[in-house]
Amino acid sequence: MDEAMRKMRETLARRFGAELPAIADGDGPQACPETWTLLAGRGSSRYFESRPVAPALIDTLCALALSSPTKSDLQQRDIVIVENRAIRARIDELLATGPQAQEWIPGAPAFLVFCGNNRRQRQIHAWRGKPFANDHLDAFFNAAVDAGIALAAFVTAAEAAGLGCAPISAIRNHAAEVSELLGLPDHVFPVAGLGLGWPSRRHHVSLRLPLSATVHRDRFSEEGIEAAVDAYDRRRAAIAPIRAQRAPHLFGTAAFYGWSEDKARQYATPERADWGRFVRSKGFRLE
Amino acid sequence: MDEAMRKMRETLARRFGAELPAIADGDGPQACPETWTLLAGRGSSRYFESRPVAPALIDTLCALALSSPTKSDLQQRDIVIVENRAIRARIDELLATGPQAQEWIPGAPAFLVFCGNNRRQRQIHAWRGKPFANDHLDAFFNAAVDAGIALAAFVTAAEAAGLGCAPISAIRNHAAEVSELLGLPDHVFPVAGLGLGWPSRRHHVSLRLPLSATVHRDRFSEEGIEAAVDAYDRRRAAIAPIRAQRAPHLFGTAAFYGWSEDKARQYATPERADWGRFVRSKGFRLE
Repeated sequence: MDEAMRKMRETLARRFGAELPAIADGDGPQACPETWTLLAGRGSSRYFESRPVAPALIDTLCALALSSPTKSDLQQRDIVIVENRAIRARIDELLATGPQAQEWIPGAPAFLVFCGNNRRQRQIHAWRGKPFANDHLDAFFNAAVDAGIALAAFVTAAEAAGLGCAPISAIRNHAAEVSELLGLPDHVFPVAGLGLGWPSRRHHVSLRLPLSATVHRDRFSEEGIEAAVDAYDRRRAAIAPIRAQRAPHLFGTAAFYGWSEDKARQYATPERADWGRFVRSKGFRLE
Repeated sequence: MDEAMRKMRETLARRFGAELPAIADGDGPQACPETWTLLAGRGSSRYFESRPVAPALIDTLCALALSSPTKSDLQQRDIVIVENRAIRARIDELLATGPQAQEWIPGAPAFLVFCGNNRRQRQIHAWRGKPFANDHLDAFFNAAVDAGIALAAFVTAAEAAGLGCAPISAIRNHAAEVSELLGLPDHVFPVAGLGLGWPSRRHHVSLRLPLSATVHRDRFSEEGIEAAVDAYDRRRAAIAPIRAQRAPHLFGTAAFYGWSEDKARQYATPERADWGRFVRSKGFRLE
């Protein structure tokens, strides 16, 4: 085990709250791949230098993102790079103001939208004279997951270049208007936005639920899950406490405010209740 | 630009059918990050040595996968590692036999299932005494995309260690039985399987649609899309022709058989038409 592997394992131990078993010599790499160091220590960046991200660099990152796996080789995801100032200003206005404002977004030098695209597949059927016999939930699902896969690869590629980024699912809070702004046609839908730039601060490595809760052997197990979440709440609060309690006017002020309290408060209020209606308006059947 | 960057750019140019603009000195890395080389050249592996993949290595890859971004920090994805021989044999039987058989699957030394998990979130609401006010499409969607993101990070981490893998969406062709085998409770669902091992053959770098078709500036554009798909069909056929035409008993034998003909034939027959029913049976409302 080299020094980089030792550091990588420390990062994972901190993130997951427990040390992982060491990989024996002969069972896997003993020198830490640069990519492992990157994945282990990743985190979203929301503070950037004003320096722009060169278009050629963004193009390379898009190509690397779209080199990622795609369900059945169908390539049902597209990327929209938002450069136009008026479109960007309107998206910033939608995301950086209001009750769930993310004030950092206007400061991101570059902005992209990852989309699911089931439209091309349907066009191919028309061009090749074949009926499209899959107008049901699977068509939407495959395109959504494909976009998520490309997003993950983009983030990895960007961080490998020293860039910072943060995915923005809140773009779907305004799906209809964003779709209109970007000219998304039927069967194309936004999955996530992404703010991108050269980071001006070191990113935070956010803690994760213990692997005992999220990785299962053979059969899904939730033995001890409530205690595991409690312990995780405490561990996070000791290292990275959540300072602003969500919606105290609705839920009061909690003596101990952990991750699970925050997440329960978040989804105690409807978010994107019109997402299904939007997706159907794009022509999808979700049967 | 170093030699690794030149090679990485060649790989991307071959994959996408056009050279990308070079990144100017000062605009981004001039020495190619190892991660870029990996992402640019990635491809699924379906042929493996019989050598097992050490559990400690798989655990590390799971940790790296679950370090990836997760919507609103909700961590709505789990991984099931299938080790039990009887469960694995039944999954192999489901996937490696029948009309869409993938004969390579039983030869994969390790097998994992990436799941969306919206169950924990709902449990947290019960434990924290908060109503869950988001019982609609978004709850399912977020967990599905979260699983896709973790899958992508897992693949990158595995390939960085020299492992090969291939995601298996066909696991959802048997969602109800797989769910039963793995004991997946309500609001937990399989997104993809993954075959994993030490590759015995060099993987194929599959060609992708041109970036002019899949990356958009400001507004979605499909100008020239039909010609782009035609050209892509020809380019693929010249480099990696599809040898077995799909369902000739239904569609005859095409003089030219390209990617789009193959994909139109694939989805001219229903696949996973019961996926929506399965997802609803897991307690999701998709309104």
